Amino acid sequence: MEVVVGIDIGGTKTKIGLVDSTGHCHVETFFRTKEYPILDHFLDQIKETVTGLLQRLPQAPVVLGCGIGAPNASSKTGTIENAANLAWKGHVPLLEKLQQKMPMPMRLMNDASAAALGELLFGSGQGMTDFIAITLGTGLGAGIVANGQLIDGHTGLAGELGHMDLTVGDGRLTGLGVRGGLEAYVSATGLKRTIMYMLSKYIEDSRFRSIAFNDLHGEDITKAAEEGDVIALRAFDYTAKHLGFALANFTAFTQPEAFILMGGLTNSGKFIMEPLEKYFNEHLLPIYRGQVKLLISEMPGKTAAICGAAALIWEQNK
Amino acid sequence: MEVVVGIDIGGTKTKIGLVDSTGHCHVETFFRTKEYPILDHFLDQIKETVTGLLQRLPQAPVVLGCGIGAPNASSKTGTIENAANLAWKGHVPLLEKLQQKMPMPMRLMNDASAAALGELLFGSGQGMTDFIAITLGTGLGAGIVANGQLIDGHTGLAGELGHMDLTVGDGRLTGLGVRGGLEAYVSATGLKRTIMYMLSKYIEDSRFRSIAFNDLHGEDITKAAEEGDVIALRAFDYTAKHLGFALANFTAFTQPEAFILMGGLTNSGKFIMEPLEKYFNEHLLPIYRGQVKLLISEMPGKTAAICGAAALIWEQNK
Repeated sequence: MEVVVGIDIGGTKTKIGLVDSTGHCHVETFFRTKEYPILDHFLDQIKETVTGLLQRLPQAPVVLGCGIGAPNASSKTGTIENAANLAWKGHVPLLEKLQQKMPMPMRLMNDASAAALGELLFGSGQGMTDFIAITLGTGLGAGIVANGQLIDGHTGLAGELGHMDLTVGDGRLTGLGVRGGLEAYVSATGLKRTIMYMLSKYIEDSRFRSIAFNDLHGEDITKAAEEGDVIALRAFDYTAKHLGFALANFTAFTQPEAFILMGGLTNSGKFIMEPLEKYFNEHLLPIYRGQVKLLISEMPGKTAAICGAAALIWEQNK
Repeated sequence: MEVVVGIDIGGTKTKIGLVDSTGHCHVETFFRTKEYPILDHFLDQIKETVTGLLQRLPQAPVVLGCGIGAPNASSKTGTIENAANLAWKGHVPLLEKLQQKMPMPMRLMNDASAAALGELLFGSGQGMTDFIAITLGTGLGAGIVANGQLIDGHTGLAGELGHMDLTVGDGRLTGLGVRGGLEAYVSATGLKRTIMYMLSKYIEDSRFRSIAFNDLHGEDITKAAEEGDVIALRAFDYTAKHLGFALANFTAFTQPEAFILMGGLTNSGKFIMEPLEKYFNEHLLPIYRGQVKLLISEMPGKTAAICGAAALIWEQNK
């Protein structure tokens, strides 16, 4: 069997798995990224983890290469640049250093772009030439496929749509210091901030009047919405309004056939998707109406990021 | 000699020329679009004009094909769709009908996308893989080149950046009914509207207090700025602010190496470009700073649109 090593480096967990040509992840595991603040130790831990995974397969596979998704990663330079959630600062030459330890074909890419490539090869993007994958986690990331290809950008940093400014300089600050940046509204963190905003704006009682910001979790907000909590319902509506407005604007750029949404926020299901459909279609230019689908990713959540990373190598071996 | 027929269909003029492989336009002419409200007559006039141009060359050339740029044109369907400034309404199957009259290889594309292709083959975009051409005329159009290719979009309608909404639904109306659409601020018409806005907002004297909206021309606004007219200077600053903000946002999408600006507004030179550089760099994400050039097209203004249209065919013959 031929496999590709897929690695998803996140602020909390680094997930690693072995993925076959159909996008099936045979074995996978993770370790905590923060336990390895020294890059060299982190890379050793990756190598050791990969060796362990290979031994878990019944037969030794042919390893075609290793694909890596990471925040703020540039596909063109093979570096991670000033990632807010990672311990290694400045320009981190991750690709070069890991290749020294594990010599094999290797590619690094922004995690959201890797997710888009995963959808193109193995997910809902199969057969599409134009779509945009939107990851809704701690932040908001985007991977853009146009003319059937992933768009890299001049130095490999395309698709930073979480930092598009929606409010002409008068909105919430993102982690990159952008005022009004989309991810300050539309992400797990953005939803929590919106709960606070709704508590400030309205007077209705709500379970969230007795929960501190740091104790808030996305699942609780979904649960509250299910129980009819007005603050939770208004927070989802406000989030969907900002996302719908943004996606309508994005459509005028590359005219995608679909947006494929993934990540924690999509677990809120109809509470986010129903108002999203409404606001999106309200803002969409008439020339595009009825032509753009809003989809939730069907890739298994646990291994989707690993398969996306592995797609970087499978793309070159198909 | 081998030539391509380049046709630029505009609301006012239809320009036609014969373009060689270097982008040089050997002969060109125009007629008034509005004089041919019946499509069939318009197409006959095109055919007659092309025949006349071919006779003006000293030797009969080899005609490789015909490229056409037009507003609201789809490269994928070969149609013009509900163009606000053209007499023919609904879905106009321009490509098919013209090909019946002039059988030869033929391509139709949105005029701004054709302009981008012209820059890629013959202009400042040569050697670049990622740039965005912005046409600043009656409206604002955009042609996006990424990964070295023009981005078409799902049905060939990508790049409608003039209709991106900057103001969360609370701004000026565009011709397509978009509130806050970029071209309502940044275009020849937008600049005139901004002169009105500045006359409403400030009390300084200005030559524009004695000129009616319909008598305003872009050149007069540039001339007034040269003479230090405060209303004109404020109008340019306001226009540049909206454009700078928008281009900074666009950068996060496909991360272009450059924006190539063209059209009437660029004739205002430093009055638009100096504040534009300032606002653009203020809004640009730190990860992109110092990496994105703002250029004015160097293609000859009179024939640039013709050469852009001809590039549609030259692209396939290189």
